[in-house]
Amino acid sequence: MPTDPASALPQAAARFADATRAAMPVARELFETIGAATGDGVGMAREPYSENEQKASDLLEAKARELCLELSTDAFGNLYMTLPGADRSAPGWITGSHIDSVPSGGNFDGLAGVVAGLTAVAALRAAGIVPATDITVMGVRAEEASAWYAGAHGGHIGSRSALGILPPAELDSAINTRSGRPLRAHMADAGFSPERVALGHGTLDLSRYRGWLELHIEQGPVLERLGLPVGVVTAIRGSARARSCRCTGAYTHSGAVPHEYRSDAVLATVELVHLIEQEATRVRASGGDLTCTVGKLFTDAELHSITKVPGQVDFCLEYRSQERSVLDHMADFARGQATRIAAERRVAFELGSFSPQDPATMDPGFRAALNQGAAALGIPAMDIPSGAGHDAQDFVHAGLPAAMIFVRNANGSHNAKEAMDYADFERGTRLLAWMMAQ
Amino acid sequence: MPTDPASALPQAAARFADATRAAMPVARELFETIGAATGDGVGMAREPYSENEQKASDLLEAKARELCLELSTDAFGNLYMTLPGADRSAPGWITGSHIDSVPSGGNFDGLAGVVAGLTAVAALRAAGIVPATDITVMGVRAEEASAWYAGAHGGHIGSRSALGILPPAELDSAINTRSGRPLRAHMADAGFSPERVALGHGTLDLSRYRGWLELHIEQGPVLERLGLPVGVVTAIRGSARARSCRCTGAYTHSGAVPHEYRSDAVLATVELVHLIEQEATRVRASGGDLTCTVGKLFTDAELHSITKVPGQVDFCLEYRSQERSVLDHMADFARGQATRIAAERRVAFELGSFSPQDPATMDPGFRAALNQGAAALGIPAMDIPSGAGHDAQDFVHAGLPAAMIFVRNANGSHNAKEAMDYADFERGTRLLAWMMAQ
Repeated sequence: MPTDPASALPQAAARFADATRAAMPVARELFETIGAATGDGVGMAREPYSENEQKASDLLEAKARELCLELSTDAFGNLYMTLPGADRSAPGWITGSHIDSVPSGGNFDGLAGVVAGLTAVAALRAAGIVPATDITVMGVRAEEASAWYAGAHGGHIGSRSALGILPPAELDSAINTRSGRPLRAHMADAGFSPERVALGHGTLDLSRYRGWLELHIEQGPVLERLGLPVGVVTAIRGSARARSCRCTGAYTHSGAVPHEYRSDAVLATVELVHLIEQEATRVRASGGDLTCTVGKLFTDAELHSITKVPGQVDFCLEYRSQERSVLDHMADFARGQATRIAAERRVAFELGSFSPQDPATMDPGFRAALNQGAAALGIPAMDIPSGAGHDAQDFVHAGLPAAMIFVRNANGSHNAKEAMDYADFERGTRLLAWMMAQ
Repeated sequence: MPTDPASALPQAAARFADATRAAMPVARELFETIGAATGDGVGMAREPYSENEQKASDLLEAKARELCLELSTDAFGNLYMTLPGADRSAPGWITGSHIDSVPSGGNFDGLAGVVAGLTAVAALRAAGIVPATDITVMGVRAEEASAWYAGAHGGHIGSRSALGILPPAELDSAINTRSGRPLRAHMADAGFSPERVALGHGTLDLSRYRGWLELHIEQGPVLERLGLPVGVVTAIRGSARARSCRCTGAYTHSGAVPHEYRSDAVLATVELVHLIEQEATRVRASGGDLTCTVGKLFTDAELHSITKVPGQVDFCLEYRSQERSVLDHMADFARGQATRIAAERRVAFELGSFSPQDPATMDPGFRAALNQGAAALGIPAMDIPSGAGHDAQDFVHAGLPAAMIFVRNANGSHNAKEAMDYADFERGTRLLAWMMAQ
């Protein structure tokens, strides 16, 4: 484990480095036992409210018991493991991430945050450091529900249930793609209480917490490309998604019909997408945060032909940004250009709604503290946005300040090839322990 | 039939108008009897070498017999119906078009050219006009073979067989999509001689002809939009077709991966198509003849997602032009831009071959004569390119000068809604008769 030599660091920093390194066997054991117990042959398969998710939760709980933490679960299966702080009446930290995974997923997406919480707590306890306030490690259920449930729902079931911000209708509109049964049935089968969702106030009393801290592997390549082990998340990007856009033109003979009489759906859509990309580039060049993706774009396989002017194109459009104003601007831009192009090119565009989801800005004070901590601990770090969604956004939307630590990871996430180095995990966990000790 | 009043025209023109109008019952009867005998419930179904194609040929032959024309057929089923001219030893005109249709096609695409030839001949005979040279009306087989036969072949079987320019391999590589059997078997079943194709010299002695004249409905909307009954074809556009282009990028997370690390196959393809369209517009603005069509363009339905950067796009690209140099320029342009974009955007393009097909330029002398004739006969006409292929191109490629007359037609072709007005047909036929009388 070739990390920063403790001897080169100031004494306080060295103490945290020694402590987390000493606690790393806790992490290794958890990753290994949970990974071995919850695979599907290709990767991990910790389906929400499944036996595998329960096995993972049980192994975490057993380790917490070994560490003499205070244990509880809530009506939705979320697991809470608390290390008492010096002032038990003061609001404490709540840290963690989700236990579940996508099908054939990696072992680290989600689980790393729960294991980091337990490892940090183990490190503090072993080093005899009593944190200023309580530290609760939360193992969240069903964050990856979107990978297992079709129908209308927003994923992140465990955290939104606990926070009282899950619309009850989602329990019935989220349909398991394998069983065909609603989320409500699976949650009840697993022994939990979907009917509690209807009460609307959740199970977490936010006044008892200072903030949510979440360690997670980076799901993109930025830290790896830049050679940095740790990122301090600036915000979780919000999104604006037009899921079912259509351009309707007219099928005609590709040789016999001059361009001025055509209604070419491909050329019209190509102009729109090209202009959107140029505008997105302009927004980024002037300092805006934005990704812009047309993940699907297709002519009609039944009707298209090399010798026909294409009469229809279906496509989707996704923007992500840390700034709601950027999302709104880009949605307006697409609508405006579509209207102009439709008139000029004799086609019709239906873009539908952009279903905006607000960004979740990380707490500036927490971010500053994490950057100071990284510097003090000798851990190279950078600010980084989160393009993917996380439980942290639900805490922010529910009103609790939050921060996230990203750990370098190769090969992306949501696949069995996730590759997080334990040395990087130790660095991220050390920063988390340092933050929660304050 | 509200055509140009004969009284307003010079005497010679009036004579042609009276003669073709008087012969129009021949046209009406042929369209009606052949249409009634060869439908498929939706439209026409005169499949090459089928019973329906034979029925149509038989009805044409019967009418030619009534008109006392000299009759013959060749080894490939093509029908020849000759009106003797004043100088029987001089090379004569050969006129006509194809008898067959696409499935559920219209009654006029092809047939109108054969009927126009017979009507023109009937008009000359009835008016007592003896043409300078022989006029042979040809009913061509199997021009629409591409609509009925898959596999490697170039369509236009009847004309290319007769001209000796059909590669024998096509008889076996063209496979009937309904029977699964090769063209050779269907041609033989119909009583004709596929083995004659291998001789390579065809059945037509081109030294016996002055040129090929073909009347055909316009398959685009130009004459209709511009309010003109007749067009004089400048050239049959050649084509350059890249049938199976692919852009390969890399699938990644649409939120977590910054644009500078993406290999986005949609945005790369969009840039390429947009630049090709701009270049095509520039070529047309500077006087070049060009259509440019991307009839198919699609991400992979198995792998694409609104939250994934798209890793693959398949598309096709078709250029058509009266000028081979324009086709070559546009193919080069696409290759050059694809290479540049691939490097800049971290993707790979495979465009494949553009399989160029040469344009067929109509004879300048014939075109000038037709324009003079239209003016003399009081028929509003314009020069027009042919975007679709016709038997005329095969005569040109075999070395015989050719010309084409387009007749105004609504609703395009290759569908049951073709809509040619008999008054327009009479005008086109009058021009044809005038030309062949010279």
